[in-house]
Amino acid sequence: MQVINDLLEYNNMKIIQDSEMFAFSLDSILLPNFITINKSVKNIMDIGCGNGPIPLILSTKTSAKIIGVEYQKEIAQMAQESVKLNQCDKQITIINDDINDYYKKIESDSFDIITCNPPYFKVNEKSKKNQSKYKTIARHEVKLNIADVCRVSKKLLKNGGILGIVHRPERLIDIIETMKIYNLEPKKIQFIYPSSIKKANIMLIEAVKNGKPGIKIMPPIYSHNSNGEYSEEIKNFFKAR
Amino acid sequence: MQVINDLLEYNNMKIIQDSEMFAFSLDSILLPNFITINKSVKNIMDIGCGNGPIPLILSTKTSAKIIGVEYQKEIAQMAQESVKLNQCDKQITIINDDINDYYKKIESDSFDIITCNPPYFKVNEKSKKNQSKYKTIARHEVKLNIADVCRVSKKLLKNGGILGIVHRPERLIDIIETMKIYNLEPKKIQFIYPSSIKKANIMLIEAVKNGKPGIKIMPPIYSHNSNGEYSEEIKNFFKAR
Repeated sequence: MQVINDLLEYNNMKIIQDSEMFAFSLDSILLPNFITINKSVKNIMDIGCGNGPIPLILSTKTSAKIIGVEYQKEIAQMAQESVKLNQCDKQITIINDDINDYYKKIESDSFDIITCNPPYFKVNEKSKKNQSKYKTIARHEVKLNIADVCRVSKKLLKNGGILGIVHRPERLIDIIETMKIYNLEPKKIQFIYPSSIKKANIMLIEAVKNGKPGIKIMPPIYSHNSNGEYSEEIKNFFKAR
Repeated sequence: MQVINDLLEYNNMKIIQDSEMFAFSLDSILLPNFITINKSVKNIMDIGCGNGPIPLILSTKTSAKIIGVEYQKEIAQMAQESVKLNQCDKQITIINDDINDYYKKIESDSFDIITCNPPYFKVNEKSKKNQSKYKTIARHEVKLNIADVCRVSKKLLKNGGILGIVHRPERLIDIIETMKIYNLEPKKIQFIYPSSIKKANIMLIEAVKNGKPGIKIMPPIYSHNSNGEYSEEIKNFFKAR
């Protein structure tokens, strides 16, 4: 069932969700707050934008044009409706297409930033069990994997352009290897830990097309307080800046 | 000038230092506390052992035989004297040799753990300026680099054996790439931050020879309190466990 939820507290931004199809998660809040955006940024693409949380949050931080690409028609429609609901039509365009086809039609070296909150799980026999078609595609690498994201980014990013990904820390090594294959140099990583005594469970990583080697590990973020609520740092991300 | 310093508080362990040649740093305290040691471990090698802090601390955690290899004669002598001073002669052997020669004489697949606190800086024109010969070799990759450490580890580690390195976070990407070349799979990383709002400045990384992909990012460690002193967590590392 579709519902309209608050996306950002102070900006009064709304987002249309459907718990059976797609609902945004903390990951989609973290990535647009992590990515390096300066004033010269003109074009941003969000690959696999889901119901649109990343384009919507980015629109509060930049006046750049933002394209969100979503493979699943019904989910792209939700994103489109949320864009209208927030009167962001002029800044955000939602494309319902498979990025692996769509990017071939796009001019090379034309984007300053590409963001992606990709499916996390490798495809295996369990991938299609116990889940709706929508969730399977959003969570498992059936239609989009890290190599796809890097291949697209290598073509579409300007020289020095930025790819930002949110993923699981367990995948750090193969994500780095894949980025390097596509001349995307990892430059900044931030880990999110459930608490100060637990292993990281979310990873943010930023790579620069044809960048020089040398990476920064940003201060840790704790997602939750001891009482199980979101930490103050996370709560601040839900407020537009 | 040589002085005898406390190495560990509760164990009354002493270590011989010479501020003009080599003095152990926090890095050498962190690595032996990070590395995974179980009861079945029989043989450990510390590459570039300096004045011996890592072998000495490891001796408080395991009854395995420990070999420390140090290229610089005078520094190896200091390590040897510290081993005697602490009556660890039966467990720790200090070898004064170049590991790049020495490892060829050692049987393959014979070590459970290899540790290394290698020189941090790439060799450049500044490498030999403003420093004693001893410090140049300890700090710059003139005699030992990451590829050397990985090549040696690939040969000397048993299948499933562990390589543990302490290094600078800026080098994360090329260390991972080099490990993968030598079939050493990164499995555990821990970052040390000067404080909760600063970037990481020390990295601990553990790789398993022929290990399966999949890495854990351990909870962050803060090295200092707001008053500039070592944090309680770090102070505990100076107490033998």
